[in-house]
Amino acid sequence: MTDAAPLLQGIIPPMITPLTGRDQLDHAALDRVIDHIIGGGVHALFVLGSTGEAPSLSTDVQREVVERSAKHVNGRVPLLVGVTDTSYSRSLELAQFSADYGVDAVVLAPPYYTPFHQDDLTRYFAEFAAECPLPVVLYNIPSHCKVSISLDSARELMDVPNIIGFKDSSGDMLYYGQLIKMTEERDDFPLFMGPEQLLAESVLMGGNGGVCGGANLVPSLYVEMYDAAVAGDVRLVHRLQQRILRIAEKLYGVGDPPSGYLKGIKCAMSHVGLCSDHMAEPLHRLTDDKRQTIERNLRELELPIEVTS
Amino acid sequence: MTDAAPLLQGIIPPMITPLTGRDQLDHAALDRVIDHIIGGGVHALFVLGSTGEAPSLSTDVQREVVERSAKHVNGRVPLLVGVTDTSYSRSLELAQFSADYGVDAVVLAPPYYTPFHQDDLTRYFAEFAAECPLPVVLYNIPSHCKVSISLDSARELMDVPNIIGFKDSSGDMLYYGQLIKMTEERDDFPLFMGPEQLLAESVLMGGNGGVCGGANLVPSLYVEMYDAAVAGDVRLVHRLQQRILRIAEKLYGVGDPPSGYLKGIKCAMSHVGLCSDHMAEPLHRLTDDKRQTIERNLRELELPIEVTS
Amino acid sequence: MTDAAPLLQGIIPPMITPLTGRDQLDHAALDRVIDHIIGGGVHALFVLGSTGEAPSLSTDVQREVVERSAKHVNGRVPLLVGVTDTSYSRSLELAQFSADYGVDAVVLAPPYYTPFHQDDLTRYFAEFAAECPLPVVLYNIPSHCKVSISLDSARELMDVPNIIGFKDSSGDMLYYGQLIKMTEERDDFPLFMGPEQLLAESVLMGGNGGVCGGANLVPSLYVEMYDAAVAGDVRLVHRLQQRILRIAEKLYGVGDPPSGYLKGIKCAMSHVGLCSDHMAEPLHRLTDDKRQTIERNLRELELPIEVTS
Amino acid sequence: MTDAAPLLQGIIPPMITPLTGRDQLDHAALDRVIDHIIGGGVHALFVLGSTGEAPSLSTDVQREVVERSAKHVNGRVPLLVGVTDTSYSRSLELAQFSADYGVDAVVLAPPYYTPFHQDDLTRYFAEFAAECPLPVVLYNIPSHCKVSISLDSARELMDVPNIIGFKDSSGDMLYYGQLIKMTEERDDFPLFMGPEQLLAESVLMGGNGGVCGGANLVPSLYVEMYDAAVAGDVRLVHRLQQRILRIAEKLYGVGDPPSGYLKGIKCAMSHVGLCSDHMAEPLHRLTDDKRQTIERNLRELELPIEVTS
Repeated sequence: MTDAAPLLQGIIPPMITPLTGRDQLDHAALDRVIDHIIGGGVHALFVLGSTGEAPSLSTDVQREVVERSAKHVNGRVPLLVGVTDTSYSRSLELAQFSADYGVDAVVLAPPYYTPFHQDDLTRYFAEFAAECPLPVVLYNIPSHCKVSISLDSARELMDVPNIIGFKDSSGDMLYYGQLIKMTEERDDFPLFMGPEQLLAESVLMGGNGGVCGGANLVPSLYVEMYDAAVAGDVRLVHRLQQRILRIAEKLYGVGDPPSGYLKGIKCAMSHVGLCSDHMAEPLHRLTDDKRQTIERNLRELELPIEVTS
Repeated sequence: MTDAAPLLQGIIPPMITPLTGRDQLDHAALDRVIDHIIGGGVHALFVLGSTGEAPSLSTDVQREVVERSAKHVNGRVPLLVGVTDTSYSRSLELAQFSADYGVDAVVLAPPYYTPFHQDDLTRYFAEFAAECPLPVVLYNIPSHCKVSISLDSARELMDVPNIIGFKDSSGDMLYYGQLIKMTEERDDFPLFMGPEQLLAESVLMGGNGGVCGGANLVPSLYVEMYDAAVAGDVRLVHRLQQRILRIAEKLYGVGDPPSGYLKGIKCAMSHVGLCSDHMAEPLHRLTDDKRQTIERNLRELELPIEVTS
Repeated sequence: MTDAAPLLQGIIPPMITPLTGRDQLDHAALDRVIDHIIGGGVHALFVLGSTGEAPSLSTDVQREVVERSAKHVNGRVPLLVGVTDTSYSRSLELAQFSADYGVDAVVLAPPYYTPFHQDDLTRYFAEFAAECPLPVVLYNIPSHCKVSISLDSARELMDVPNIIGFKDSSGDMLYYGQLIKMTEERDDFPLFMGPEQLLAESVLMGGNGGVCGGANLVPSLYVEMYDAAVAGDVRLVHRLQQRILRIAEKLYGVGDPPSGYLKGIKCAMSHVGLCSDHMAEPLHRLTDDKRQTIERNLRELELPIEVTS
Repeated sequence: MTDAAPLLQGIIPPMITPLTGRDQLDHAALDRVIDHIIGGGVHALFVLGSTGEAPSLSTDVQREVVERSAKHVNGRVPLLVGVTDTSYSRSLELAQFSADYGVDAVVLAPPYYTPFHQDDLTRYFAEFAAECPLPVVLYNIPSHCKVSISLDSARELMDVPNIIGFKDSSGDMLYYGQLIKMTEERDDFPLFMGPEQLLAESVLMGGNGGVCGGANLVPSLYVEMYDAAVAGDVRLVHRLQQRILRIAEKLYGVGDPPSGYLKGIKCAMSHVGLCSDHMAEPLHRLTDDKRQTIERNLRELELPIEVTS
């Protein structure tokens, strides 16, 4: 990593992208969601990730998100921008655009159309890191990219200048455990967990934080869990884990898989008045009956937020 | 389908995209490749597909390919353009751009980042077909898109206006057999096979043609196979099949999977002077020793083309 | 292969095992089913395969099936016995038992519990072939065994003495096409297709027959299809294929996957009075409403058999 | 659960089966291994599991293992016997045999040849539990059985009399987390973890122990880890985890996947004089060079056992 790179750790919510229609960013909602999340005590903010539906957005909307987020976050927490794309140039241009707006780091997963070999993968990441004006966090999400970052590739890329951290959304704790083992002596190379259901155990085992989608809605809960896990407070971890699992069940489990998570979180956020539940194509908002189920479940969950709808 | 839609059948090569560097289209090579392919007697041409590395190209290069191909094909055969993208707007804009240049139809696979449900899929395709100024050929390629077009979705989408055909690259003949059964009474709804190794049997069983990557190199071989299969000349089919399988083995099997096919075909084309073997990132050309293996294999194959390098 | 080995080809039905209760073989039904199948003109008979629920049967019942089948077939057609097991000794003992009763060949798939490497697989098959008193037909069925016989392993095993043929139930025509290419010059090494929906194309492309489950019910249909494909009569193939696909849809598609095929075939056979639909655990017969659906569908199919129930 | 059922928890090693040749049990080694394992302070012993190569053994050898183990353990710790089989009768007979020898419980995974539906699965387990003379621990190992015990099935089976616990070898902590949530209020229904690399975190999150293969070699290490995790001593957990991961890397990672674990553990045990490394077919012992690598690695690991070979 470079000297200028931020030392990331803790809860870094992958922000949803509030939309009012196709390619219509909701600026006011964007500000509102940012304030809501930062107000929950999170350690950084990540826009244009999978939860932000980034690949479904037009280039213009992606840039609007970066510009507006950078201005509104205004240095309160580090800001990360997802620049994953199937086109190398588009990724690089978005990184350059982000640099112009003072973003702190970019997050990069493998290009996600053509499957390719690990040799191409390591070369791709190394080339990108060399050309990128911002530090790069690697992102492993084989459910979306098909290509996984192998443990050998991860080991090699960890030593590449300008690559400063790793987010893993594989959900595979055997893999994650190997990453922890690899970075045991690397205080400057943080590891982040994707699925929020695995936040606690990943931190208990030596990970450095989580990119928890649920933190769009209840940021403080995930911050509290992170703190409990860092402190090794297993009893508190168990209690909070039950709440986190109930959120997953009651909000993400309503819509049909495999996109019930994305639709559920946005629907729940619409019920508490944070934003609309408009989804970018190919997704569509939940049907009315499922919207109502989410509302009912939200009340049941008794989260520390007000359900307004 | 609409009255204006072309009735597609036969061999529709998925054209490679000749590049000289990152985002540098090789215009002269493009013309050369087009003439080479059409000279082989193919029935139509398909640009910006998976073999054309379309998702890896910048929007500008994609448009150059469309414009230049449309001008150079100049109506000699129907021209199809792949418009698959994770962004609905980008797909639609490329379709509109294609319509402006007189393209005959577009080919559309599911958006390929976020996995989603069949309900979203059918809605996505139906909405796109309604807005698209050109007829739409559906494209099923679960190895790249993760989401497969289910048989139920295919049945539903077949009746949607402006959807005029189906290309399947699943490699699953049980699935393809069901498609054939479904379209038995639909002379106006052609079915195309992706993997060229399955061209013969798919046509023997009732399919309507193939999108054969090898036809970039030896178009006449695949045309001959198509004709043999249509004629039910099983003896000739067997003989040609051995040649097609040897091409796959000797050219696509040299580079490491899973991209050995793409690299092999472009490398072979460079050896016969059709274009450079520059690949769009994240792919990279074959190493020198593998390039030489391809050259040696090309000579062994004794294809009806001159190896110049 | 050895001189004594039978030259297998054509339709070799995988016989169901008629049961009246747990570990209770229905001897009369066994005879009836054998006569029914042989009466349809099939080329050989295969007992104790996957369709015969062999791994679910006790060793005693397996032996009863071998003994009774051998006596009742009585040389009318070659008899093959599946001896696949996770225990090498149990496989060998069943092969020896089969040899004592004049069986013609055994069929052997990989042991199906622990996943293992291809080196162990080739060694396993070669050792077994050397010790086995009967010729061995290899059986590839990765959906059940997890371990697939790789193409390299298949190539190696083809030359092992006492291995005389190959049955593939992978459903992967790219794989099967490679097997055909490999055995092009081997008239003495037949290739058989598992899924009956792929019988026609596999024979059209050069395969040697099929192990069609539906031939338990309508043996003559599959024999007719085999003959049509051998003759290259594509028009007749298309017509018969529609019937074969309808059988799959109407009889195998009623029960929940993945065992709808097994339950459907046995249920249909019970409706025509061939045997009971009792299944070996862990399977259970179809529920009453599904039994009735099968009966209705059977009548609709207008097969050349009488529905008695 | 029944009143008579043992309350299981802690480390329950899946004992390897010491063999001297095909179907030749090494009785002296069996005693030695049992003493070695119990001497390490484990909480129970599990014979005839996957690590014990049970499905590859003949029925006679399986019975010898039960009889000899029961006699030699002699009540020092609870004894569990794996009775998983594709034949219901064989499973039940082994359970009855085990009951006759005073075994404490049986462990049962789904039958592992034919894939089947969850309805058949729950019915299978419930029927078996009702007929089985011993308490039943459910065992989920989709890598070997293909069929997974779904969360809904697990929830249903948890309430079935005579089913007293659950061992999960899926390696999927999202799944395991749900099991923990389900059994939160069930002190009498313990959950065990298969892969030893996940022992610590599963116990930290609320699980009740592990079936650790490495405990054949160094039982005390896994007992220590279990104690550390129960105590919430995260610092000690981290230190022990590094050792457990190094064992996996240095001993299980030498042989080719997917059976490197089984071969490595038995090879290591042969180097410390506990037993021969003879494997049951289809597996074969490691080659000489890999045997030497294991020996070298064993010395490097500096485990609290003497390497004698």
